This record gives sequence, structure tokens and C-alpha cells, in this order.
Amino acid sequence: MASSSTRTVRLAVIPGDGIGPEVVAEGLKVLDAVAPAHGLVFDRTTYDLGAARWHRTGETLPDSVLEELRGQDVILLGAVGDPSVPSGVLERGLLLRLRFELDHYVNLRPVKLFPGVKTPLADVTPDDIDMVVVREGTEGPYTGVGGVLRKGTPQEVATQESVNTAYGVERVIRYAFEQAAARPRKKLTLVHKDNVLTFAGDLYQRTLKRVATEYPQVTTDYCHVDAATMFFVNNPQRFDVIVTDNLFGDIITDIGAAIAGGIGLAASGNVNPDRTAPSMFEPVHGSAPDIAGQAKADPTATILSVAMLLNHIGATEAARAVEQAVSADLAERGTAVRATHEVGDAIAKRVVG
Amino acid sequence: MASSSTRTVRLAVIPGDGIGPEVVAEGLKVLDAVAPAHGLVFDRTTYDLGAARWHRTGETLPDSVLEELRGQDVILLGAVGDPSVPSGVLERGLLLRLRFELDHYVNLRPVKLFPGVKTPLADVTPDDIDMVVVREGTEGPYTGVGGVLRKGTPQEVATQESVNTAYGVERVIRYAFEQAAARPRKKLTLVHKDNVLTFAGDLYQRTLKRVATEYPQVTTDYCHVDAATMFFVNNPQRFDVIVTDNLFGDIITDIGAAIAGGIGLAASGNVNPDRTAPSMFEPVHGSAPDIAGQAKADPTATILSVAMLLNHIGATEAARAVEQAVSADLAERGTAVRATHEVGDAIAKRVVG
Ligand SMILES: CC(C)[C@H](C(=O)O)[C@@H](O)C(=O)O
Ligand SMILES: CC(C)[C@H](C(=O)O)[C@@H](O)C(=O)O
Repeated sequence: MASSSTRTVRLAVIPGDGIGPEVVAEGLKVLDAVAPAHGLVFDRTTYDLGAARWHRTGETLPDSVLEELRGQDVILLGAVGDPSVPSGVLERGLLLRLRFELDHYVNLRPVKLFPGVKTPLADVTPDDIDMVVVREGTEGPYTGVGGVLRKGTPQEVATQESVNTAYGVERVIRYAFEQAAARPRKKLTLVHKDNVLTFAGDLYQRTLKRVATEYPQVTTDYCHVDAATMFFVNNPQRFDVIVTDNLFGDIITDIGAAIAGGIGLAASGNVNPDRTAPSMFEPVHGSAPDIAGQAKADPTATILSVAMLLNHIGATEAARAVEQAVSADLAERGTAVRATHEVGDAIAKRVVG
Repeated sequence: MASSSTRTVRLAVIPGDGIGPEVVAEGLKVLDAVAPAHGLVFDRTTYDLGAARWHRTGETLPDSVLEELRGQDVILLGAVGDPSVPSGVLERGLLLRLRFELDHYVNLRPVKLFPGVKTPLADVTPDDIDMVVVREGTEGPYTGVGGVLRKGTPQEVATQESVNTAYGVERVIRYAFEQAAARPRKKLTLVHKDNVLTFAGDLYQRTLKRVATEYPQVTTDYCHVDAATMFFVNNPQRFDVIVTDNLFGDIITDIGAAIAGGIGLAASGNVNPDRTAPSMFEPVHGSAPDIAGQAKADPTATILSVAMLLNHIGATEAARAVEQAVSADLAERGTAVRATHEVGDAIAKRVVG
């Protein structure tokens, strides 16, 4: 599908830590392979953020870099985090700061079992696992609100506060209704824990009911987060679109990854649907320092994140081409172990046809 | 194993809502069957608490009833919650109030696949799933601290606070070390989310490290809650004893139930290890109003909770007899559907031999 006019997209690349750079290289390989036929040119800037920079300069995300990132169209991120850096420093200071500053209020995480992929569940087929989790991305227990009193003493108190606003809850629920309305089953499930977290749960419930009146074609229901995790394992067919808070979304999408063939395949988008700042696409997996530099990481999750990125910028045909290439690769993958770049090569080759 | 001397145990029974009364009846049937041979006499008081009482009187847990319960030795609870009562009223006002008031700081939840039980996971055997989750029971996001501002307006803010104290964290971690030290593998895993919930996570981490010096025979490690849910599905062998906070424990023990054959088999104890108040044993499942009154509920979780109750009161041989009866029943259960009381009958019969 050659196109005569070209479109230039400013792409920020944050390879990050551990296996991040390895999987990002393959994502870019596939992007480069698919771009020309769809009239896309990516004007790429790579940002050196992560553990190495923190060790060198003490910086996680300098304000000047954040401002530069705001000027980009879209971001591709590998992974963030390293055992040499205290837990939370890079996660809170870099990854979560990006999500919050760039107002990524939707963390979009498809959970889909591709044909040919081995799932740890007995008796399920690809038809049984096909859902989209719409995880809130800028509120809930992820705000960082909280603190510690009398640290290190027997009287220590440590708090973490989940902050939820009508503004924040309504916009993510609206987005989830749009997703559900666009899918064949048109079913939206709120996952929360409203019998214990009564204030936040009630806000989610009331907002769901109110917005539901605008989407009569969408059926809605509710599921406690603990029960939801169980259904992921013994009745994943139950779910079509899920909307949930930041922490519950974090947890259930890891089970989602597990049942859909593993974290090596799980893609995500940190989306700013209002496009007031660039959205950011990243594999769900972390930096996996134990296998970094060994060409063992599966870049498929990053490549599928690239497909989501293409969709987000409106290059839907290019996105479909990448998805189809991945799907074909997965169907024929079998049990042979391939190096990271071999997987990228194979998918890139399929993408160009 | 007849015994000449008898011991009288004051047992409070709270059947509760939905399938609660049905499964509790079977638990008591088995208790009655096992007691005589072990010199046990249960002096039983049944407490009418739950949805019906709330509708009748508006009460969830009157102070006078709470005081009576304090005078009992141990409590057996069925399930609490009904769709006719607003979500949270009975959970917070009755179940969680009991756990907090009676200082059940350990919520003990074994996750064990019995031979013959069907798991939704492919390629696992009973040897692969045998762990104990030590869930904190009196702190974390379950405190009820939080509130709502400008309710029902576009400016609404709803908060939930996780409160964690050195006092509360240390005692549950100590208990978990004791459990780990008593098991063959002697491995303790802290499950938390310390890269996001940095204040609470850090308190758990520091406490784990400090207490670990007293248990050199126990190996410890750490796992983020999101990754833990994945390991439950694709590598449950990874876990021996887990210690975790109240909310994470709630979530992972439901996946635990799912992988170990379903919620119909998952037992739990709300334990006050200092014995300053009675401990309370209950199946992990809820009141399941959709199947209540139909003799469809599996009472096995309650019967296994009775075994935990027996262990708690020091009747270890009686506990073992119940466990063995359950184990034998499960091994021969097959796929035949039995009524609630038929399962109870079968296990009670095995218990007396
Ligand atoms: C690394 C961590 C902060 C992050 C999260 O908790 O959101 C990760 O687990 C994810 O799911 O993207
Ligand atoms: C009913 C509910 C309050 C309870 C909890 O969240 O602890 C239940 O899910 C459990 O696990 O015992």
C-alpha cells in the first residue's frame, strides 16, 4: 500500500534499563520496516533516561527533558528499573512521573490469546481470552500521597493515600465505554473493591451508572478485584472491556499477561486521549536485569506496543500490518528458542511482505 | 483415639448470609463427628448476624454482641453479604469490624492442591501448589480511613488511606517467619508493591530484613504483587510462605483458590496469635446469593476451616483427622455432583472412620 505523500512523526525513544534497549531496538526495526509503505517518516530522538543517568547525574527526569518530550508526537519506552537503584526511585521519578505529567489517564492493556500461543490454562482457546483492560493512570494509590512518621522506630507509621476524583474517574470511564461500544460484545465490567474501599468504590459505581445512560447499547456489570483475578484463571470469557483503578489495573493485567501467553507478549499504551501531550507506548514487562544483555528477551510485547502506537497516531493500516505480522509469527513460532533480534528480524520481514 | 477426659470449648457460630448457614451446618456436622473421639465438647452459641438482622434492626454488630463474642474461645463464620444491603455495610460493619476488634492480625490462608482435585492450570501437580499466605488483617487499605468531599459534584474527591505501623507489620512478619521455619522449604516471600507504595513497602522491607536476622534458617525474598499473580499462574512452585498486606493478601488468595481447585475448597483463619481475643475461622468464599438455598454450595472450604479451628485450639489430632477425611473425599470425588449435605455426610462418615 504505497503512498505518495509522506507524514513526519516526531518519535521520542526511551530505551531505559535492562532489556529495555534490546527490545526497543526490535520495535524500531519493525517500525522502520512498516513505515515507508504507509507514507510515514519517524523523526526520532533518543533520550538517555534510567539507571545509568541516575548514577551519573542523580537525575531521573530533568524538567528540561520533560519539556522536550512534551514537544514530541509520541513516545516509545522500553523498561525502567535496576537493582542498583533503590526501589521506587526510577519508577516514581521517571516512569510514573511521565504518566502523571503527560496526563496518561488511560493505561490501555489488551489481553488477547493469539492462535498458536501456549497458555498455562487448560481448556482455553484464543476465543476465550480477548479483552481490553482500561486502567486509570493518573490517580488512585499511585499518587505518591502519603508519608512516614517516626521512621525506624517501634512507633513508625507509614501511609499511602488513594486519591480519586470525579474528574479523573469520569474521563477514564467514558473512554472505557467508547472502547466497549466499538467492540462486538459491548460489555463493560467495573473491577474494584467497593465493599471495602467504600469511598472510592462508590465514586466509581455512581460514575459508571451515570455515564451508562449515554451508552444504552453497552451492558455493564461489576466484579470485585479478588473475584476478577479468579475469573481470569477459570472463566476469562467473562470479560470484554474492564475499567479499573490504577493499582487493580496493574495487578490484573499481569495475570492477564500470564494467561495470554506470558509477559513477553503483553503490550500497553499510556494514553492521553485528549492529546494535550504525547502518549507513551511500552511493553508491560519490566527491565528484567537477570536476562539483560543476553539476547533472551522476547521483543514481541514491544512490537505489539509499536502497533498500538501506530493506531494512536492514526496509522491504522500500518498498525494492522504489524499485528498481522506478529500474529503470523506467533502462529508458527513453536517451541524453538530464538534470540531477541531473530524475533525482530522475522516480524520485520513479514511486515514488508 | 478415645480419650477419657473431656475438654469444653466455647464455640461461637455466625452462619451469616446466603450459603453461609448451609456450609456452616456441614462444618458443624463434621465437628460433631470428630469431637467425641478426641475428648472435645463444643459449647455452641449461634449468633444471628448478617443481612436479615440488619433489615430487621439496622444493626450490623451491636456492642453487646461483640462483648459476648469476646468471651468465647473460638468463632466459626459462614459468609457475610447480600445484594439487598448496600455494598460495604455488612463487610465493614460486621466482618471487618470483627477482624479489627478481635485483633485478627493474621489472616492465614493455605493454598494447597489436593490430589485428585482439578486445577485450571495445565501441567501442574499437587507437589507444585503448596503454600501458605500470611495476610495482614488489621491495617493497610482496610482501615476504613478516608472520606469523600463534595460528593456527587464534578469536584468530588474520594480518598482511601492505607495505614501501616511498625507494630502491626512486625507482628505479622514474625508470625510468617514462624510458619516458614516450621515448614520443610523454609522460604518466606514478601509480596508488596514497594516501587510504587514506597512508604509502606519500605516499612515492610526494613522489618523483614531486621526480623530475618533472628531466623537464619529461613531464606527470604521479595516479589511485586503484580508479578506474584503471574507466578501463581505460571510458576506456583516459587512460593512456600508469603507475607503480604491486607489488600494484596485478599487478591492473591483468590487466585490461590482458583489454582488450587476453586473457591469451594479455600479455607482461612482470622487469627489472634496472642490469644487476647477469640480467633475466627471462615471459608474464603462469599455468601454466593445466586446459589443460596439450593444445596449447591461446596462445604469443603468450611470443613477445612474447621480443621484450622481445631489446630488453633490445640486439637491437632482431630484437625488431622478432618484434613485426612477431606483429602480422601477429594481424591475420590470425581465429577459426580453432590448436594451440600451429601458432601458433609461423606466427610463426617470418614472422620468417624
Ligand atoms: C514499574 C511499575 C511502576 C509499573 C506500574 O506499577 O505501573 C509496572 O508494573 C507496570 O505495570 O507498568
Ligand atoms: C468480604 C470481604 C470484605 C473480604 C475481604 O476483602 O477481606 C473477603 O473478600 C475475604 O477475602 O475474606
